[in-house]
Amino acid sequence: MTQIDKMIFAIKDVYQSLEKISKLPEIRVGGWVKSIREGKEIIFITLNDGSTLENLQLKILQKNFSQDRLLNKINFASYLLVSGKLILTPQRKQVFELSVNQIEIINSVDNDYPLQKNNIPLEVVRNYPYLRAKTNYFLVIFRLRHNISKAIHDFFHHENFYYIPTPIITSSDAEGAGEFFNIITNKKEVFFSKPASLTVSGQLQVEALAQGLGKVYTFLPCFRAEKSHTTRHLAEFYMIEPEMVFADLDKITNLAERLVKYVFNYVITNNIKELEFLEKFNKKELISKLQKILTSDFKKISYDESIKILAKEKNKFVFNDIK
Amino acid sequence: MTQIDKMIFAIKDVYQSLEKISKLPEIRVGGWVKSIREGKEIIFITLNDGSTLENLQLKILQKNFSQDRLLNKINFASYLLVSGKLILTPQRKQVFELSVNQIEIINSVDNDYPLQKNNIPLEVVRNYPYLRAKTNYFLVIFRLRHNISKAIHDFFHHENFYYIPTPIITSSDAEGAGEFFNIITNKKEVFFSKPASLTVSGQLQVEALAQGLGKVYTFLPCFRAEKSHTTRHLAEFYMIEPEMVFADLDKITNLAERLVKYVFNYVITNNIKELEFLEKFNKKELISKLQKILTSDFKKISYDESIKILAKEKNKFVFNDIK
Repeated sequence: MTQIDKMIFAIKDVYQSLEKISKLPEIRVGGWVKSIREGKEIIFITLNDGSTLENLQLKILQKNFSQDRLLNKINFASYLLVSGKLILTPQRKQVFELSVNQIEIINSVDNDYPLQKNNIPLEVVRNYPYLRAKTNYFLVIFRLRHNISKAIHDFFHHENFYYIPTPIITSSDAEGAGEFFNIITNKKEVFFSKPASLTVSGQLQVEALAQGLGKVYTFLPCFRAEKSHTTRHLAEFYMIEPEMVFADLDKITNLAERLVKYVFNYVITNNIKELEFLEKFNKKELISKLQKILTSDFKKISYDESIKILAKEKNKFVFNDIK
Repeated sequence: MTQIDKMIFAIKDVYQSLEKISKLPEIRVGGWVKSIREGKEIIFITLNDGSTLENLQLKILQKNFSQDRLLNKINFASYLLVSGKLILTPQRKQVFELSVNQIEIINSVDNDYPLQKNNIPLEVVRNYPYLRAKTNYFLVIFRLRHNISKAIHDFFHHENFYYIPTPIITSSDAEGAGEFFNIITNKKEVFFSKPASLTVSGQLQVEALAQGLGKVYTFLPCFRAEKSHTTRHLAEFYMIEPEMVFADLDKITNLAERLVKYVFNYVITNNIKELEFLEKFNKKELISKLQKILTSDFKKISYDESIKILAKEKNKFVFNDIK
């Protein structure tokens, strides 16, 4: 078995500490092959290890590896472990590359591997949910989701809210918020002493606990069993539910504004590459939209005012209860 | 309705910025009454707002409030909003107190309120789950749980792991890890196109996503339907499941050691008051035990070695498969 050196560098760290790492005699990096450009003497391979959207360019001299058929086994999406010297090339578009001394192929990829190149349409990827993390689009989405989740927890922590992981299995129906799922054992046996369902909201629990902890929140999956197969309905979805004692509407809306801005700022600061990717992919002007919201004050209007505005646009809305 | 001043101070902040806050002409604080000591001229009330385990002592001069029957309405567990001047009293055991100018009773408590004093046995509290946050013990537990959860997310973030919120509703049974719960709608209708159950583990999903993101983890509820009503079985429980590519046992056990130490250190740094409370309550030497683990290297032994050690203590263990 391959000896795993503790000093395998994340590509993210290579980008962040370029000067320092370029002074080391040799570094090791592992990752998946994202592209191969083969010349007569030199092969360029771009490698990604998931730590960042950015790839590391490998420069491989054919003659150094001519003794075996190693290079022939490397294909798109192979996982390589390489050692080499980081070379700064500030005069070129690609401002650094790894000059490779040693290559280990951890695994190469079969001929019938379904994602044989970049830019596979999402409709195709959907057929292979277990391969989502092989596509840049989903790498971007998962990375954004990670940081959004981190920012939400950080925000509430800074604001002295306590995270309350409310139960998923419950016998309470909150405010009758929607159709719910019931739970039975796989042997159809009765398990709990009363009918149990999946939570539609943690609100009841956080309301009770706020009466002692002061400020609390949940951030957990909720479940709805509405028979509606539109993009607006999810059987399982995440909901943030803050509760604080002694708060009026102003205090609550201010909290919501601070939360939204904190998360947007966090993402702009930490995920600009991911946002740029999405702008190019299909979200035009995404970054400027986020920045505009960040620098705006949220306008607050009364219920009455909002109805007046909506009534002016009658044709765009369906009014059920409102005259 | 009471105007809610944005400048209500959290008691936590009062403790942390004592010098600064004592220079303000007046501050406002809200909280629940934890104790009342009534003298001829002075009433001392301790107030807690959930932001910290520590209480704020209020000093109320009877004569300033003699014009109405306000003081009579204040009882144990009432919620008060008070304004006053913070007075440092370094010569006394209680090194500061709030000299109260104004009191508002947001709500007082009915005569049949079940937790009429501190130190209610846990067995009694169990009958009123919605009142748990009124007891110091559960305030301590929830505060610790919040910080443990925060530390776990922070640790994996620093280690460049991505948080993957794997689905709760699933059609996969992971490794056949245990009995599972099935899901039906409350109208007993078929909802999903195949049988759906509550996840027993997010491992399958994180394994797939690690093959692109490199390092991922879940930290979510899992569910087991074993018919076992012991303290060792939970139908719903939280599990941390990290997955990283290209790791050997050494790398994995080192990660586990760093995680445990990071969390212990975080809790000792941020929750020493809570740990001291638990030491007094029922967890003898809790803090020194945590500190000992923090400063020790975790010993690693092979499976064979561990069996030898266990075999020496045959009478303490049940060996099913081991000769």
